[in-house]
Amino acid sequence: MSTIPAELLQTLAGIVGEKGLVTDPDAMAPHLTEWRGRWTGRTPAVVKPATTEEVSAVVAACAAARVAIVPQGGNTGLVGGQIPDAGGGQIVLSLARMTRVRAADATNGTLTVEAGVTLLQCQEEARRMGWLFPLSLASEGSCTIGGNLATNAGGTAVLKYGNARALCLGVEAVLADGTVLPGLRALLKDNTGYDLKDLLIGSEGTLGIITAAVLRLFPLPSATETAMVAVESPSDAVQLLQLMRAASGDRVTTFELIPRRAVDFVLDHTQGGADPFEEAHPWYVLVELSSGGKAEELRTLMEDALAEAFEKSLVTDAALAQTGEQARRFWEVRELISEAQKPEGGSIKHDISVPVGSIPDFIARADAAVGAACPGIRPLAFGHIGDGNVHYNLSQPIGADTAAYLARTDELTAIVHGVTAELSGSISAEHGLGQMKVDEIAHYKSAAELSAMRAIKRALDPHNLLNPGKVVRV
Amino acid sequence: MSTIPAELLQTLAGIVGEKGLVTDPDAMAPHLTEWRGRWTGRTPAVVKPATTEEVSAVVAACAAARVAIVPQGGNTGLVGGQIPDAGGGQIVLSLARMTRVRAADATNGTLTVEAGVTLLQCQEEARRMGWLFPLSLASEGSCTIGGNLATNAGGTAVLKYGNARALCLGVEAVLADGTVLPGLRALLKDNTGYDLKDLLIGSEGTLGIITAAVLRLFPLPSATETAMVAVESPSDAVQLLQLMRAASGDRVTTFELIPRRAVDFVLDHTQGGADPFEEAHPWYVLVELSSGGKAEELRTLMEDALAEAFEKSLVTDAALAQTGEQARRFWEVRELISEAQKPEGGSIKHDISVPVGSIPDFIARADAAVGAACPGIRPLAFGHIGDGNVHYNLSQPIGADTAAYLARTDELTAIVHGVTAELSGSISAEHGLGQMKVDEIAHYKSAAELSAMRAIKRALDPHNLLNPGKVVRV
Repeated sequence: MSTIPAELLQTLAGIVGEKGLVTDPDAMAPHLTEWRGRWTGRTPAVVKPATTEEVSAVVAACAAARVAIVPQGGNTGLVGGQIPDAGGGQIVLSLARMTRVRAADATNGTLTVEAGVTLLQCQEEARRMGWLFPLSLASEGSCTIGGNLATNAGGTAVLKYGNARALCLGVEAVLADGTVLPGLRALLKDNTGYDLKDLLIGSEGTLGIITAAVLRLFPLPSATETAMVAVESPSDAVQLLQLMRAASGDRVTTFELIPRRAVDFVLDHTQGGADPFEEAHPWYVLVELSSGGKAEELRTLMEDALAEAFEKSLVTDAALAQTGEQARRFWEVRELISEAQKPEGGSIKHDISVPVGSIPDFIARADAAVGAACPGIRPLAFGHIGDGNVHYNLSQPIGADTAAYLARTDELTAIVHGVTAELSGSISAEHGLGQMKVDEIAHYKSAAELSAMRAIKRALDPHNLLNPGKVVRV
Repeated sequence: MSTIPAELLQTLAGIVGEKGLVTDPDAMAPHLTEWRGRWTGRTPAVVKPATTEEVSAVVAACAAARVAIVPQGGNTGLVGGQIPDAGGGQIVLSLARMTRVRAADATNGTLTVEAGVTLLQCQEEARRMGWLFPLSLASEGSCTIGGNLATNAGGTAVLKYGNARALCLGVEAVLADGTVLPGLRALLKDNTGYDLKDLLIGSEGTLGIITAAVLRLFPLPSATETAMVAVESPSDAVQLLQLMRAASGDRVTTFELIPRRAVDFVLDHTQGGADPFEEAHPWYVLVELSSGGKAEELRTLMEDALAEAFEKSLVTDAALAQTGEQARRFWEVRELISEAQKPEGGSIKHDISVPVGSIPDFIARADAAVGAACPGIRPLAFGHIGDGNVHYNLSQPIGADTAAYLARTDELTAIVHGVTAELSGSISAEHGLGQMKVDEIAHYKSAAELSAMRAIKRALDPHNLLNPGKVVRV
């Protein structure tokens, strides 16, 4: 099966030792299948270097043998970027053993960690230092910071703090020939040349393998207010967002849209979640404000903002969490949406973004278009609309044949992405391209941009050895 | 003088028309000298296209003739990036006529402007829309947004809002062969490939010519509090910064360090400025908080934070501006520092950054080192220390010969940048490399980073026609 020379495996074993070279099929299996089972690949070996020097030596050895490498963090990616192809000729390089915290600077507000540290550990380490690392997403317990940066992860706090790129000051990376790029600067300002950090971040391991990073921390908020708000329409939700941002002095940390259908799914199919209000409403928004000021002041801000929204008829009901437990229950509804879709049959998922003001238009147009193509289809438009990011998932019509429905994925996705493109949006707001959208993006991105991407890929990885077939084809 | 074929000039005249082609020496002169007179170049023509299509055609024509182009915005740069070389063979491409506002989206909070719009106009346009464009710097009346982005400008609000890169969602640019890269996306999230926007931003016109940009706007703060605070040392100033950020819930917009010597210079040599306190203090900090909440609440936050700082003996005196006029007078001291240095003779300036916690160490070490090399030298360490950015300027010893002192620039700069490098800092925090530091950076940046920069430059500009000799030599 393997097209990899045996000497290379011996060389790799010499570099990473016995603990670092996995060739047993059972031990390799968890690295070879995407967690939802959508992509499976093959490899002769999963290599787990423990240091940057080992990563460098592994990459150099593979480069000399012209063997491709697929870097992998926590294997939680949603677009197959972390899975090797089926040919069996690509080495998987897992950063799982690189788990050191290299530096914690409480004065500067920076934390330097290796790629294999989980996002949760980064959050906890920052908290111990008296700071906040705001990146937060569903898989935070198992995803790693290296993967978060390689994919420029988003999550629930992007509106206030930005995505992973904005939360990182510097990266150390191993380039395609094994050279170590020592970019672990902890500087807020540095205008000494091209922005290699931001180029590596989001490149999904195709330009370099991020081995460590300097994370930017923020003052811990001393107060948080959470509300569940009922609104009539996405349009009212967008207007509410503007009102809340202005009225709270830009203290909106989270602004998540939830359709009634999602609440029904959560109530029907999960143990958690509670109907937020006695009556059902067509749409909900989960709003969180946070601040370093006094809790009462933030509470007043939230109350005043909601009162203004009632006056302007933007909201039909609102519940302000009185306790942490109540806030947790509001969040639970949002967090259970993914799980709650499964029992409803086939679900075709999209991760799009448009300018915030175009969200109502996107939902209306996409609903109409997919409804026309597939009567009875049940759209679920939810997510981080403060960022213009809608997770637009399509549950199958009730009683439809799941396999037949899922067979129409490409057709329905083309409809959704077509509407996205009409509204100058993105077909991958936060999940990346991976192998899932590497070909599709060619329909939506300009030739000039694709050509520039290819030129950069060729310049930094002339033999196409770093995660080939992901992000951009050369 | 010109090595440019006459046919090319005819072609360019055909593209941009009479108004767009300047060859009269008097009319060209303002484009050929850096405003402080440090760099002067020569050119056969200053070309002023009025549209992106014209920029594209100009670049394509120059590329076909293998003639280099120096893009220029408001000609306010401080490192000579906008000035052609002395050979007379480089065309200056001024974006000054590209001044349209292409779109203003008050729902999304975005403003799409062409490269030649001044920073001040961007600020004013945003304000008219009910939003804030927070980029702010001394030359804002004449610098252009294209230049701000090409150099990733910083300024006084970086601590809260980030530098120019963080304030831009998308760029349209003309690449080296004349291709238009249509990247005017107004999206907060877009993970569909390499981050070309951030690569172009800060590349100082060496990878592409930015012709338009989508600016990210923020809610207008409804309250601002300004205080002048006296502190004993840079170390106390850094601790005060941490205290203020935590106590104010990260509402510190500005945190500028001012040494007593700078206040003396301002009082001695300018019409404006007033001594902030009756007694002299060794160091001052100009602090600004801003928020969208109520003014009284912010005032209380500032007062409480300062009271806590007094208790901890971090500050020796503090004055809270009671009126806008008083705040303006505090700012005046800071803003007049540059002007006030001139009558004191030769000044050797540096724009460095280090991790915030290393600022006291930097100032102590650099003061000692330059003092040992040049007894009587008068360091002025001031600037945006909330960003770790110190403008470390060295006024000549009293009575020294100015020319002899300035002849030691390279020697003294090597000392200052050596200390910066010891503390893992940057030799250009916000001004860029331009032609001033293009060779010097080779001593401070890793071979891997320089090599990656060269590879990218060669990939996107294979004939080295876009601002050659700036940022990176190929």
